[in-house]
Amino acid sequence: MDRTSFSSCNKGKPIRCKAAICRKAGEALVIEEIQVDPPQPYEVRIKIICTSLCHTDINYWKLNNDPRAKFPKILGHEAVGVVESIGEHVDGFKQGDIVLPVFYPNCEECKDCKSPKSNWCSRFCDDFLSNTRRYGTNSRFKDSSGEVIHHHIYVSSFSEYTVVDIAHLVKISPEIPVHKAALLSCCVSTGVGAAWKVAGVEEGSTVAIFGLGAVGLAVAEGARLFGAGKIIGVDLNPDKFEIGKRFGITDFVNTASCGEKTISQVITEMTGGGVDYSFECVGLASLMEEAFNSTRTGSGKTVILGMEKNASPISLSSRAIMRGRSIHGSLFGGLKPKLDIPILVDRYLKKELNLDGLITHELSFAEINKAFDLLVEGNCIRYTIWMDK
Amino acid sequence: MDRTSFSSCNKGKPIRCKAAICRKAGEALVIEEIQVDPPQPYEVRIKIICTSLCHTDINYWKLNNDPRAKFPKILGHEAVGVVESIGEHVDGFKQGDIVLPVFYPNCEECKDCKSPKSNWCSRFCDDFLSNTRRYGTNSRFKDSSGEVIHHHIYVSSFSEYTVVDIAHLVKISPEIPVHKAALLSCCVSTGVGAAWKVAGVEEGSTVAIFGLGAVGLAVAEGARLFGAGKIIGVDLNPDKFEIGKRFGITDFVNTASCGEKTISQVITEMTGGGVDYSFECVGLASLMEEAFNSTRTGSGKTVILGMEKNASPISLSSRAIMRGRSIHGSLFGGLKPKLDIPILVDRYLKKELNLDGLITHELSFAEINKAFDLLVEGNCIRYTIWMDK
Repeated sequence: MDRTSFSSCNKGKPIRCKAAICRKAGEALVIEEIQVDPPQPYEVRIKIICTSLCHTDINYWKLNNDPRAKFPKILGHEAVGVVESIGEHVDGFKQGDIVLPVFYPNCEECKDCKSPKSNWCSRFCDDFLSNTRRYGTNSRFKDSSGEVIHHHIYVSSFSEYTVVDIAHLVKISPEIPVHKAALLSCCVSTGVGAAWKVAGVEEGSTVAIFGLGAVGLAVAEGARLFGAGKIIGVDLNPDKFEIGKRFGITDFVNTASCGEKTISQVITEMTGGGVDYSFECVGLASLMEEAFNSTRTGSGKTVILGMEKNASPISLSSRAIMRGRSIHGSLFGGLKPKLDIPILVDRYLKKELNLDGLITHELSFAEINKAFDLLVEGNCIRYTIWMDK
Repeated sequence: MDRTSFSSCNKGKPIRCKAAICRKAGEALVIEEIQVDPPQPYEVRIKIICTSLCHTDINYWKLNNDPRAKFPKILGHEAVGVVESIGEHVDGFKQGDIVLPVFYPNCEECKDCKSPKSNWCSRFCDDFLSNTRRYGTNSRFKDSSGEVIHHHIYVSSFSEYTVVDIAHLVKISPEIPVHKAALLSCCVSTGVGAAWKVAGVEEGSTVAIFGLGAVGLAVAEGARLFGAGKIIGVDLNPDKFEIGKRFGITDFVNTASCGEKTISQVITEMTGGGVDYSFECVGLASLMEEAFNSTRTGSGKTVILGMEKNASPISLSSRAIMRGRSIHGSLFGGLKPKLDIPILVDRYLKKELNLDGLITHELSFAEINKAFDLLVEGNCIRYTIWMDK
């Protein structure tokens, strides 16, 4: 079976297909038939081949009493697809292209997209409230009763078909296995990018990674790829050390076994003064502070990847920061999706970037609620949800 | 009169000369005759030509109940001198050389001094308790009764002669006027370096500087030198705007006139989203936070230069940092003294770096206590204290 095939006679017409709808915060998704409108200008309709589930989906699934909590909605944003049809003014994409939808925009036209300084897209980054990029709260989804179904961070991959703005779409080589490529649409790019672009890990440097979920392991893989000598994994779960070794983790700190010492004291002792780079991949202000305190004076860099769960502030010693340390935040690992994801695909194809071992489970679309259970219980790294299984 | 001349018959012998001694925290200095021993290995004895007074001297002058509060001592660290004699194993310095003593070490031999990553000198940076670099708490100073007088952050420039480790000494071109050169031994290097090396200010960028003392004005001069388009000065004293214009300040925010808005709200409005670079030169955690909040999302950088007066922590919004911001601490503006000060001297001689207007007063050595009064009252930027006047 060719997973990239689809009927090409729907161009310009709505498509009826299956989608997993979340009707209320925290409730099980229900697979229903929906209608997916054709793409508007600057949009592309894609057939999702496979998707995964990320902690951000879980956060939005639970979200209530928040302007972003719009229901019913179609969650999902880590995925790979194939272009079914394109709207007006779409250059660079054609039917049949293998594409990654990416929640993080890259319009390629604004001042920031044109600048090499960061991956900010000032044209689109500030809006996480509209359904579609250029048409506000309009939606391309309706259920069988005609009720509008909301999009989710510009992707909505828990649907056989979805419509994505070109600012959120990256064309990739069809040579990479699609389920591996899907990892690059969120977690791997975020982790590898943080080591590569935000920290600038270099040959022989020392690294500490707080939280060995998929993003933390991707940071380890990025640190390994750029030559780090010592890569310390920090986690509550000792099983993560064995898993982490595959991605370059050389040493492990079990946060439950530090005794009277703080984690940062343990790391400072292990490294004779602290690591060159530390990464927080959990989203806890107290761990961000420990990550900061684990770096060496003079040039230690801390990168924050975890979204603080309670929006708590970070408290840093002003004296410690004076002594040459720095702390950096980043979204999507500092990568410009359209420029940098194809580079990561290329490094995978050259067998330099390791994506094996991150996918621990494969599920069918019908099993989507099981995916939520597995991730909440912490019994998986990433899985592939095949849409046609 | 040639200020660089001295008797060359003292080599290897103690010198008797005048020094301003601080016998007790916060008390007026007393000019007395002292004895300055000859330099030990890796040390150089220099004749101070002129010196200035910096807020760090004031802080150490008041310091009590602290391991660093050793009295009697000879304060002063922003100065220029001429080499009188050298100890064993001293390469690169000879009698008659014009030199800057610098509180910040640069041994040129440790891993960090050899690395381009930072200006940390891991061999010597961690010790601010010993009198001399390689001989612990030994001192080269005695008063007329034979009592030991302590050194001050490896310089002690309030003495006609002092002994400095070569890790704290930079040879400079004799073409630069000595009183201008003295500024490069602390405040100007710290400020210009923060804009140049730590922030990496570039052509057309926007900058906000919190606190327009000598260091803040030097940040402005550095930002101007590296092409910043808009340089916003922030101070309580509106007179600082006129002064700041000479160093490139283009806009001014009077902290007393922000009304119900925070300073960062005012700056965000002035710049359509925040500055590219902000610098805190006062040493107040609340201002550090305002400086952080004044930068633009995506790539805003904050540099902390002020030593927090109460060692209070900095509290940062974890959400704001996630959106691509960073905060950096630095000592001595991220400059490696031996490598970078000669570059600044060269840029002064090419008339690119402006040092005019920073020296607002000239005093004789006998007037040293007046210098303390002027700086405490905030009625000067920098002054030159001529040792032979």
